[in-house]
Amino acid sequence: MSTDTSSFVDQLLRHAEAVEGCLEGLLGPDVQSGEIGRPPRLIAAMRHGALGGGKRLRPFLTAAAARLFGIAGEAPLRAGAAIELVHCYSLVHDDLPAMDDDDLRRGRPTVHKAFDEATAILAGDALLTLAFEVMAAPQTHPDPAIRGELTLGLARAAGLGGMVGGQMLDLAAEGRYGETGVLAQDDIRTLQAMKTGALLTFAAEAGAIVAGADATDRARLVAYGKALGAAFQIADDMLDREADAQAMGKAVGKDAAAGKGTLVDALGIDGARRECARLVSEAEAALAPFGAKAQTLCDAAHFTVARRN
Amino acid sequence: MSTDTSSFVDQLLRHAEAVEGCLEGLLGPDVQSGEIGRPPRLIAAMRHGALGGGKRLRPFLTAAAARLFGIAGEAPLRAGAAIELVHCYSLVHDDLPAMDDDDLRRGRPTVHKAFDEATAILAGDALLTLAFEVMAAPQTHPDPAIRGELTLGLARAAGLGGMVGGQMLDLAAEGRYGETGVLAQDDIRTLQAMKTGALLTFAAEAGAIVAGADATDRARLVAYGKALGAAFQIADDMLDREADAQAMGKAVGKDAAAGKGTLVDALGIDGARRECARLVSEAEAALAPFGAKAQTLCDAAHFTVARRN
Repeated sequence: MSTDTSSFVDQLLRHAEAVEGCLEGLLGPDVQSGEIGRPPRLIAAMRHGALGGGKRLRPFLTAAAARLFGIAGEAPLRAGAAIELVHCYSLVHDDLPAMDDDDLRRGRPTVHKAFDEATAILAGDALLTLAFEVMAAPQTHPDPAIRGELTLGLARAAGLGGMVGGQMLDLAAEGRYGETGVLAQDDIRTLQAMKTGALLTFAAEAGAIVAGADATDRARLVAYGKALGAAFQIADDMLDREADAQAMGKAVGKDAAAGKGTLVDALGIDGARRECARLVSEAEAALAPFGAKAQTLCDAAHFTVARRN
Repeated sequence: MSTDTSSFVDQLLRHAEAVEGCLEGLLGPDVQSGEIGRPPRLIAAMRHGALGGGKRLRPFLTAAAARLFGIAGEAPLRAGAAIELVHCYSLVHDDLPAMDDDDLRRGRPTVHKAFDEATAILAGDALLTLAFEVMAAPQTHPDPAIRGELTLGLARAAGLGGMVGGQMLDLAAEGRYGETGVLAQDDIRTLQAMKTGALLTFAAEAGAIVAGADATDRARLVAYGKALGAAFQIADDMLDREADAQAMGKAVGKDAAAGKGTLVDALGIDGARRECARLVSEAEAALAPFGAKAQTLCDAAHFTVARRN
């Protein structure tokens, strides 16, 4: 399938605005009432960590997956926003001095730099908790069984066997805990499937869940999300190698400096490009049964490996 | 109502064992498989933070509240365990160097002392996430609407308007962010209702939710929980004043050193004792419609203010 990149990017940007509006509502004026019960410093830090940036790729995947089944509107938007809140919390915590110690994120100071460490820890905790509050709320879907599946899936993608576990493995791969700094290729794939793949995969699956899709169709979205997630991470590693600091808006070359192995090290730049192309084809193949309706999601897979930041 | 303290403590200890067993199952051998997908260091840190200590008062309240409506077994036990996981996560994060900087908790090294700061941040994140996974799982209750209410209530008690918000206010009350160190009595009450009250209140309410109780009975448990939570915190502040480090198993007198006002400062020791007694009566009054069935919960309120650690 071919990709009309500019019209895809338009779609992505338009949806990112809708996500921003949803997040603004969740972290907005009525929350910022300034009473003692709503600590303004914490809310400001949550807003710093969650608003005003990012492609909002995960919520886009949720919305595009739901549209495969003819579902649009508030339900996929809120489910996607909840997933984005988990993504944002993980960035806030991963940037902390005790973790990756990053000063910049999307060209702006990280939350612990703009505020302080304690505030950043609490803002991350609050964003994570808010994600579950949003997902479990009746406004997200009238059917409590569907809200329950969304909540459970989000918790699994975020927890021990997903993002948190992946970040722990990533720290260990730096040799912090006495282990060697170089992982086998399979271990790199497992680590990345957890750290970044689990939430991207769930973002795609969540669209099917919101739409009440059957198990077969859910499995198709999961297969698509897994391939897209793996391609995303390799593309990220290539960007980390190639891009200059300005284009990324964050410190680059850190993985290399930390001595961590990536698939780009293991496969070489050309091999990594081929692996990306293979994964994009795999993502497209998973959606073949949906035919032309899946074009947007296929475009998203192409975009993921072609993006420059 | 009178209190048979020793038989109440027996009940509390017996239930704490059941909670320990449940948490052990959630963080146990099949989770600790040692594959790369289940980072053993993270699991060890989660176990350190969640197992082997504590009165498990919150799960006890959930179980005792459910028994008011004739409900016992797995549902209230799992709901209580999920609440306890949130309590444990909050201790792990509050102890961090950037927050309260505590080296000891229940007489043992805190998680960041036994492991390291990054691991403690991640273990807290993982315990919080696991709490939602447990609450949302079908094993907790067959009715998805009830699981949904439990999940939503837990998120509200834990988040911005609950524990996280309360901890932020507590840090601000230390004068970290340029504000004055002394709070008005009403502000102390608000802070404590959020920081410790919200989860204790929800623990009691969760028992009613699990049992499918109506709104009137839920409101009674909420009123009970609010009074008990307020009494709990004043008792804690009195212990902080009086107890020696050995009996508490943690550093004492820290609140005084940090210059934070507590209700004990505002009311004096005698006034604080009277306030505790008033709150216990208020807790009992809220449950009066249940008659003798509420004895265990009334005992719990008395225990809360009489405990020595």
